[in-house]
Amino acid sequence: MTVKHQVKAILREPDMHLENRARLLVKCPDQPGIVAVLSSFLFNYNANIIESSQYSSDPENGTFFIRIEFHCDNLQEKSTKMEEEFTYIANDYGMEAKFCYLTKRERTAIFVSKELHCLQELLWEWQNGDIETDIAVVISNHEDARAIVESFNIPFHYIPAHKEIRQQVEQQQIRLIEAYDVDLLILARYMQILTPEFVNHFKNRIINIHHSFLPAFIGANPYERAHTRGVKLIGATSHYVTNDLDEGPIIEQDVERVDHRDTVAHLKKIGRQIERRVLTKAVKWHLENRIIVEGNKTIVFH
Amino acid sequence: MTVKHQVKAILREPDMHLENRARLLVKCPDQPGIVAVLSSFLFNYNANIIESSQYSSDPENGTFFIRIEFHCDNLQEKSTKMEEEFTYIANDYGMEAKFCYLTKRERTAIFVSKELHCLQELLWEWQNGDIETDIAVVISNHEDARAIVESFNIPFHYIPAHKEIRQQVEQQQIRLIEAYDVDLLILARYMQILTPEFVNHFKNRIINIHHSFLPAFIGANPYERAHTRGVKLIGATSHYVTNDLDEGPIIEQDVERVDHRDTVAHLKKIGRQIERRVLTKAVKWHLENRIIVEGNKTIVFH
Amino acid sequence: MTVKHQVKAILREPDMHLENRARLLVKCPDQPGIVAVLSSFLFNYNANIIESSQYSSDPENGTFFIRIEFHCDNLQEKSTKMEEEFTYIANDYGMEAKFCYLTKRERTAIFVSKELHCLQELLWEWQNGDIETDIAVVISNHEDARAIVESFNIPFHYIPAHKEIRQQVEQQQIRLIEAYDVDLLILARYMQILTPEFVNHFKNRIINIHHSFLPAFIGANPYERAHTRGVKLIGATSHYVTNDLDEGPIIEQDVERVDHRDTVAHLKKIGRQIERRVLTKAVKWHLENRIIVEGNKTIVFH
Amino acid sequence: MTVKHQVKAILREPDMHLENRARLLVKCPDQPGIVAVLSSFLFNYNANIIESSQYSSDPENGTFFIRIEFHCDNLQEKSTKMEEEFTYIANDYGMEAKFCYLTKRERTAIFVSKELHCLQELLWEWQNGDIETDIAVVISNHEDARAIVESFNIPFHYIPAHKEIRQQVEQQQIRLIEAYDVDLLILARYMQILTPEFVNHFKNRIINIHHSFLPAFIGANPYERAHTRGVKLIGATSHYVTNDLDEGPIIEQDVERVDHRDTVAHLKKIGRQIERRVLTKAVKWHLENRIIVEGNKTIVFH
Repeated sequence: MTVKHQVKAILREPDMHLENRARLLVKCPDQPGIVAVLSSFLFNYNANIIESSQYSSDPENGTFFIRIEFHCDNLQEKSTKMEEEFTYIANDYGMEAKFCYLTKRERTAIFVSKELHCLQELLWEWQNGDIETDIAVVISNHEDARAIVESFNIPFHYIPAHKEIRQQVEQQQIRLIEAYDVDLLILARYMQILTPEFVNHFKNRIINIHHSFLPAFIGANPYERAHTRGVKLIGATSHYVTNDLDEGPIIEQDVERVDHRDTVAHLKKIGRQIERRVLTKAVKWHLENRIIVEGNKTIVFH
Repeated sequence: MTVKHQVKAILREPDMHLENRARLLVKCPDQPGIVAVLSSFLFNYNANIIESSQYSSDPENGTFFIRIEFHCDNLQEKSTKMEEEFTYIANDYGMEAKFCYLTKRERTAIFVSKELHCLQELLWEWQNGDIETDIAVVISNHEDARAIVESFNIPFHYIPAHKEIRQQVEQQQIRLIEAYDVDLLILARYMQILTPEFVNHFKNRIINIHHSFLPAFIGANPYERAHTRGVKLIGATSHYVTNDLDEGPIIEQDVERVDHRDTVAHLKKIGRQIERRVLTKAVKWHLENRIIVEGNKTIVFH
Repeated sequence: MTVKHQVKAILREPDMHLENRARLLVKCPDQPGIVAVLSSFLFNYNANIIESSQYSSDPENGTFFIRIEFHCDNLQEKSTKMEEEFTYIANDYGMEAKFCYLTKRERTAIFVSKELHCLQELLWEWQNGDIETDIAVVISNHEDARAIVESFNIPFHYIPAHKEIRQQVEQQQIRLIEAYDVDLLILARYMQILTPEFVNHFKNRIINIHHSFLPAFIGANPYERAHTRGVKLIGATSHYVTNDLDEGPIIEQDVERVDHRDTVAHLKKIGRQIERRVLTKAVKWHLENRIIVEGNKTIVFH
Repeated sequence: MTVKHQVKAILREPDMHLENRARLLVKCPDQPGIVAVLSSFLFNYNANIIESSQYSSDPENGTFFIRIEFHCDNLQEKSTKMEEEFTYIANDYGMEAKFCYLTKRERTAIFVSKELHCLQELLWEWQNGDIETDIAVVISNHEDARAIVESFNIPFHYIPAHKEIRQQVEQQQIRLIEAYDVDLLILARYMQILTPEFVNHFKNRIINIHHSFLPAFIGANPYERAHTRGVKLIGATSHYVTNDLDEGPIIEQDVERVDHRDTVAHLKKIGRQIERRVLTKAVKWHLENRIIVEGNKTIVFH
């Protein structure tokens, strides 16, 4: 049996134990009684709260956020009525709310260029069953990733890209994204700038990995600049993409220690380890509905 | 103005903004509806939930734990009625519950021997207003700590101790602890074994710092043994004291990197930094009612 | 082009720039003048010291260790004479010494069972050119790793193993190790006990990864036991294998934070990340001749 | 006995075992033979090398740096001749060199404003004998530190400062620094800008702690800006002061994890712990002659 077939067998079946699980995400003006109303609503459906995390920006006149994961027998039959009935509560309390069902996995497209370490880590963790997604397609402006991607039986599309043809390229990409019915875009070291139109099209749905500890070293060549500055730690940052370069809401960051002996090549090597784990964490949390974007910041319910 | 007077002025006044704040800790068999009943109860008193953390050991037939911090106008007038009324809910759901009021700070006794770094860190953080307690008394089997303790205007009691007179010593200590109305005992590198009677007297109320990454190097001379074993990280562990030496419920642990060049003296020096921060965190969390002991483990709601 | 061919093309050619590079490792009784005699010796060959690290167990009557990496034009022609001449110095100073040439890469055999994450990380880093070795063979008591190993064009041998047939199995393994001319054995989560004969045969040449922070949780099921004990950090340890189970010289250790919510399955998942990086570091350092084993401890020259 | 007297007794005597210890720091163009010539020179004085660390910016045409710590009997009698003789070698190889004797401790002045945590950590570590210096004087633009400083029997000078009188203030400060014969200035959260004249006067002799992970958040209010940006780690950086604000050679940096719940006040509290340890490490390394400034970067020999 080849690697391909193993992967296929292990990964493509959604976990049937999850059919009665869902997550409710709510954002609303803070006031007494919100938890009472939400938990009573769920109790009326005989749902059991598995995990609940909340945050209030300010107890007085702040905004309240909550993520509740619950189990509910026969959820698939009840869900339509549940969501309908919930609209009344949502109206009363000025809530933005979303129900996420664990059997309805988000579909992702991974964008990559020539550096493959972030892609490989994602594929690996996905293969282990540790990322809740269907990887629908990988898109690249180079051919380097084709072999590894196709060995996982995932469609690979090569779309050459450069500054002059940016708009045509993005139109091709959008057609693919739509054809593959993609929810989330992951820029796994995709080294092309995106146009504002493209970014606006996928608001809070594009996750990038930047190879520095933002806001230090925004833009090109962060390792070279880190080396020139003589920093003693280097880092990586995953964030949602906005139209301010490297200024989008930060999801996760991490660092490693370096010293005067480390050349730029060493920094890149060390950095690859940080990039791998930081991007993978951010993607997992997004897919587990743990992230709420508020202004230019994220609330991450671990 | 001397250090003493500064300290006195800064620290002894409870924060009046906290008079309407409390925490409710609950443990009970898990079942649907618990959060609904608790949050509705609080809503009936017009209390606003500031922070809420919960944990279920197992969604099916597990034990449910929750810590709710809330604000409630005129809490001091309402609290008696609130607690009375809560007993009905507690009975219905088989709850163990506790209301903790932020104006009623726990009183602590610090036990110390000749190594003063943990004591100093605690005094310092307390002086900064970062530990919610009244330090009622420091008790030591040596005189080394007297000057620093008295400079903070805290009573210091010297009670010489050795194996042969352990019981008399502990009786003296218990008399002091009762006289000072102490809730929590902190062993800040107190190098005497306690008798089972003493430990049982203060169940889950004695926090110790052990100078190793438990369960490695239980017992005496952990740094010497870490050096002999050639470990590449050394650690410290804070835990509640039970009658199994260094086997009580772990609250917090941390480590630092060491290498072959580090002598035992270096390990002790590095270890002091770890011990300071690990013990201080454990003490803070205990006093903020963030810790629930369950079996021989802790649930810590950060 | 398939993944296989890429790998082959990228990896199998030794770096020609390294033909004039070597490392000299020396251990001897400490006394004044050792560095002078070694550096003068190298200077007489017009060698340039690239990197030098030393350690003395004790300035008085201690043992002195040094690792010198140097560049020397026409090293391959000079090396025989160099080594011969060095024997005089070695005799005078009571030195154990070893010259390691960067063009003569050590050959490794990786042993693995059903858990493949450590194997995969090693293959990956090796494919990136970040591990100085030729992976000669992978040996397993299960078939799980075959597809991935063969996709790298590396020979894979399946040798079923259990307690009763341990000696026959090991004889088969030794024949393979000799046939493939292997220098270093890497136990990348190989879940079989080795006999004393086997271990003695490869003294300081077997590197294991143990899935705990040694000396905590020696032996079987460390994650289960870590969960039961309620530790707040879990770890992994790479060490040379000796005939005391999990008691061999420690090369590297690392930890990650966990909390009360983490089940055994979570600990294993988190642990896999630690195991991957800890084993890979240890293997790299061994192959870069950075490790000297002294008694039951290691000196690691980073 | 008061704290004051204890401190005096414990700390002011230099360690007599150190009278035969020195450090030699050398910088020169790289070429074969440098280590040979230096180690032979020391061996001729029968000196024993205790610790040696070197770095070459590039094996070809680079710059070579070395720090050698050695023991030499009767060093005090030999040192003049040693240094004289060394000038011949220094000339031959184009070396900048410095001999540092462990009995001649550098004298420090600590500058502080209202935040006392860095000062306290320095005093504490110094009291433990862990910082090789004589703290000659503490200078502040506020009275807040007086009590704690004087309790250590260290002279405290209050010099009010603001923008308009900067030059007069600095002249007063320079007079004090000269009167106290100070070698190193430590800005332990001293919140005043220094003039170029002042900075040039003490080149590579002023160590600052900046409360961010540089080059992120240069300038004022870094914690506020970190909060606004929504970073997931906050840091602190110690560096030598130059006339580019927060752009001087970085000595040490560290970070701690934060999350969306942390207010600016929390960030400051967490940051204080980072600042304490980062500044203390930088100061220790400077005083142990472990730092060489090269261009705008530091080489730190750990």
